[in-house]
Amino acid sequence: MPHIPLPPDLAGIRGAMAFRPETARPLNALVEILLRGPNTLSPGERELIATYVSSRNCTEYCHNIHGAIAAAHLGGNEAVVKQVKTDFMQAEISPKLKALLAIAGKVQQDGKLVTATDAEAARKAGATDLEIHDTVLIAAAFCMYNRYVDGLATVQPEDPAFYRERGARVARDGYVSVSEEYLALNATAVR
Amino acid sequence: MPHIPLPPDLAGIRGAMAFRPETARPLNALVEILLRGPNTLSPGERELIATYVSSRNCTEYCHNIHGAIAAAHLGGNEAVVKQVKTDFMQAEISPKLKALLAIAGKVQQDGKLVTATDAEAARKAGATDLEIHDTVLIAAAFCMYNRYVDGLATVQPEDPAFYRERGARVARDGYVSVSEEYLALNATAVR
Repeated sequence: MPHIPLPPDLAGIRGAMAFRPETARPLNALVEILLRGPNTLSPGERELIATYVSSRNCTEYCHNIHGAIAAAHLGGNEAVVKQVKTDFMQAEISPKLKALLAIAGKVQQDGKLVTATDAEAARKAGATDLEIHDTVLIAAAFCMYNRYVDGLATVQPEDPAFYRERGARVARDGYVSVSEEYLALNATAVR
Repeated sequence: MPHIPLPPDLAGIRGAMAFRPETARPLNALVEILLRGPNTLSPGERELIATYVSSRNCTEYCHNIHGAIAAAHLGGNEAVVKQVKTDFMQAEISPKLKALLAIAGKVQQDGKLVTATDAEAARKAGATDLEIHDTVLIAAAFCMYNRYVDGLATVQPEDPAFYRERGARVARDGYVSVSEEYLALNATAVR
C-alpha cells in the first residue's frame, strides 16, 4: 500500500504524478527528451539503457514498463530485453551499446566509478560525446524515477499483459501525451 | 578532468547543463519547483534535505553548493548545515524535519527501504502527505543530480568562497534565472 494516498487505479509513477502534477511536468519533459528526442541513439537503445538501470535498482514497475517500451521499439524483441537485464555482454546489441551500458551500470552504483578509460572505450566503439553524456544522464535519471516509484510504495502490477499494452502505447504516443491524459483526469481529484 | 569536453569555466552541473541545454531546462524546472516553489516546507528546510542526500552520495559540488544555499536561506547559519551533514538527529531543526530526513536517507540508499512506519512517524511529527511526497522526490532527484555531476567527472571546486558567493545568488535569484544566463552564453559555443 502506498505511503500516501495515491489514486488506486494508477500504477507506478502514474499515481505519484497524478498526486503532484506540478512536478510531473518537468519529470515527463525530461524523460521525453532523453528517451524520444532527436538523437543518434535509437529510442530502442535508450529504452534498453533505462530498462537495464531500473532492473539493477530492482524497481519492478520501471524495468517492466521500459522493457516493454524497448521491445515495442525493437519489433517485439522481448528476448533481447531479457538478455540485457540478465547479462548484456551476451546480448545481440552493438559493441557501442555494450560500452554505454557498462557506463550506465557504474552510474547506477555511483557516478564516481566511471573512469576516463570507460569513456575512451565507448568512443573507440563509436560513441559520440553527446551519446556518453546522454547515457550518464539517462542512468542518473532512472536512479531518480526508480527511487520515486519505490520510495512512495506505489502499486506495481505483476501481470506482463499490463506492461505490454501500456508499453506499446507509450512507444507509439510518447510520455507527455500519454501522461497529460491522466494528469488532466486526476489532478484535481486527488489532493 | 571531465570525461567529455565541458566548458572549463563552468563548475559542477553548470558545465554539464551548458553542454546540453535541451535537458538543462527540465532539470532546472524540477529543482526550482521542488526547492523554491510554493510549499509548507521552507526553502531552507528543502535545501537541507538536498544537502543531506548529496552529502551521503559524497558529491562535493552538490553538497557544498546546496549547503551554501541552505545557509543563505537560514540567516547564514553554516553550523546547522554542517550538523545536518554529520548527524542530523543532534541538529537544531524541528522533529518534523528530522523525520523527513530519515525518509530521505532511506531513499538515497533504496526507495524500498522506506516503511509505512517511517511515513507514520513523519505524520505524527506534523508532516503532510505532500511534504512526505516532496521529501521522497527531492531525495530521489538529488540521487540523479549527484550521479550526473559525478558520472561526467565535472570540475568541483574546493574553495568555500566559491560556494558562498554562488549560494547567496541562487538563494536570492533562483535556479532558473541564474542558469538561463550561462545557458544563453554557452549553449551554442560548446558543441
